[in-house]
Amino acid sequence: MAVLTFIGSGQMASALTFPAVENGHTVRLVGSPLDTEIIERLREDDYHINLKRTLPKGIDYYTVDQMEEAIDGSDVILGGVSSFGVDWFANEVLPKIPAETPVITVTKGMIDQEDGTMITYLDYWNEKSDNKLNLNAIGGPCTSYELADHDYSAVAFCGDNVETLKNLKEIFETDYYNISLSTDTKGVEYAVALKNAYALAVTLAVGLAEKREGEGSIHYNSQAALFGQSIKEMGKLLELAGGKSENMIYGAGDLYVTIYGGRTRKIGTLLGRGLSFEEAMKELEGVTLESIVIAGRTANAVRKLAEQGKADLNDFPLLMHVDEIINQGKPVNIPWKKFEIESFD
Amino acid sequence: MAVLTFIGSGQMASALTFPAVENGHTVRLVGSPLDTEIIERLREDDYHINLKRTLPKGIDYYTVDQMEEAIDGSDVILGGVSSFGVDWFANEVLPKIPAETPVITVTKGMIDQEDGTMITYLDYWNEKSDNKLNLNAIGGPCTSYELADHDYSAVAFCGDNVETLKNLKEIFETDYYNISLSTDTKGVEYAVALKNAYALAVTLAVGLAEKREGEGSIHYNSQAALFGQSIKEMGKLLELAGGKSENMIYGAGDLYVTIYGGRTRKIGTLLGRGLSFEEAMKELEGVTLESIVIAGRTANAVRKLAEQGKADLNDFPLLMHVDEIINQGKPVNIPWKKFEIESFD
Repeated sequence: MAVLTFIGSGQMASALTFPAVENGHTVRLVGSPLDTEIIERLREDDYHINLKRTLPKGIDYYTVDQMEEAIDGSDVILGGVSSFGVDWFANEVLPKIPAETPVITVTKGMIDQEDGTMITYLDYWNEKSDNKLNLNAIGGPCTSYELADHDYSAVAFCGDNVETLKNLKEIFETDYYNISLSTDTKGVEYAVALKNAYALAVTLAVGLAEKREGEGSIHYNSQAALFGQSIKEMGKLLELAGGKSENMIYGAGDLYVTIYGGRTRKIGTLLGRGLSFEEAMKELEGVTLESIVIAGRTANAVRKLAEQGKADLNDFPLLMHVDEIINQGKPVNIPWKKFEIESFD
Repeated sequence: MAVLTFIGSGQMASALTFPAVENGHTVRLVGSPLDTEIIERLREDDYHINLKRTLPKGIDYYTVDQMEEAIDGSDVILGGVSSFGVDWFANEVLPKIPAETPVITVTKGMIDQEDGTMITYLDYWNEKSDNKLNLNAIGGPCTSYELADHDYSAVAFCGDNVETLKNLKEIFETDYYNISLSTDTKGVEYAVALKNAYALAVTLAVGLAEKREGEGSIHYNSQAALFGQSIKEMGKLLELAGGKSENMIYGAGDLYVTIYGGRTRKIGTLLGRGLSFEEAMKELEGVTLESIVIAGRTANAVRKLAEQGKADLNDFPLLMHVDEIINQGKPVNIPWKKFEIESFD
């Protein structure tokens, strides 16, 4: 059995203690600087105040100042920070991890560079790191609550080293946590990052229907139309970023689950109802919205690629409209006619 | 303005009277032999007893014995039968249509042939017809209720003749009914036919969660896992059938909307809860289930292709399990581990 140290005690990392502990591994859960309250309560009775679940017995809890002690002697490090903790993870955590220790992270997202290139967090961390690390990531549709509740989930572990991936799968796989493996880290990571932007786009239709017919009214034709358009644009983005198209299944599944997920659905719905971006954000005060960040970054990247003649903005009418809404204060006005295609042999 | 004759006054055809009438066309709505009650009530006050909506004013209603009168002088015929009326449409309707009159049908589905080949209804009708007809079809995510309610919808019209397609688009397109065009009839038709089988598959997870945690409990991780697997298998089926993969967007959108659609969700949920297929069908007495028909036909086709070495059954674990459930009386036991893939460069 292995010693696993989780850095960051957010909801997703904490939910992953279930398969890990149930498989008999030793789990050390280390709070980030933002997690002190979480760790304090966990030490009392294993109850996670944000996940709202009692974690399995036997986990050792550490505060951030005890991180080095927790890392010492670990077989695997699991990075549990959100995309807002990416730099903290790079600067404060990665330098403390021995080169031979595999790292697997749950952080979803990507970064747009000056020239329009998009890079994954794995690439970003590798660039920023002095020592060569064995970095791997988890992608695919899996919400923390439902994993904690043992709902069946299918995810992908991705990384460069096949042996590491197989070993990580053996550690985490249970009857309800099903793990595919891929060395196409770009493909898996982009597919699941992009879905955040598009989940917001699909849920605009939820608010639009409510605006027409009153809150609580629900229609699926318009959601399905935006879902199909999202799949189309995500496929083209995956292609632009150099990922394999087979990874769209993780993006499609993840899009599906995120639409029902909570915060992203909420902002999309509010915008669809007619609130301005500023008004909608006020209603969600204090909530970190990765979907907003990703939508902006992806739109930026695509615009820069288009300037260089490497992408065609006409291929991304939905993404461009989401960007107009969140970054230029424009009202929701779905460009339906721009989605129409003519495909003649 | 054109004279449009709709044959079959089911829900989908009747919902299409909204864009047609609103665009100023003359609409003749002809009941099939099963639609007598519907037509009788429509003649009273334009209320459709199954669609549960009042149709737009000005439609001329015809019973089946008045079909020839209705067809006479029509610019376009819209075929509105369900997949259970395919042969009636072939035998009783198509021979009465002049060769030069374009036909567009809403019937979704496909037929498996002895050798494992799948054919679309358009191909089937062309084969059975003596005169060469100009047959076109509508695919994509669009439920009748929501179209009648003017929810935004995106569909594809497909057929062989580009000019006809453009003309049909001009007739039916409105601000809320958005029409793409494609000459890849196989691709569009299979993508939307297959989603019926897979919508049943995804909703098994709805029932499974309820079985574990009680009715009304809902989880999305497992639905998303089955959704991703469905997209994967549908893509491979589309490839086997010779359709273009770009049409997956209609299938994906249609899968999304069908999961929330009613009858197919109901049977999937009942099966997931643990009812046998026979018990589940009893609860749905009298309801025509295209998903069951399509799942069986697709599984048959794939098995025959596999026997000939043209397909690999390991690519379709979810379809094969759905077939086991509905045609071999087996209990639901999702083969999660068979969905896992290893993709190494």
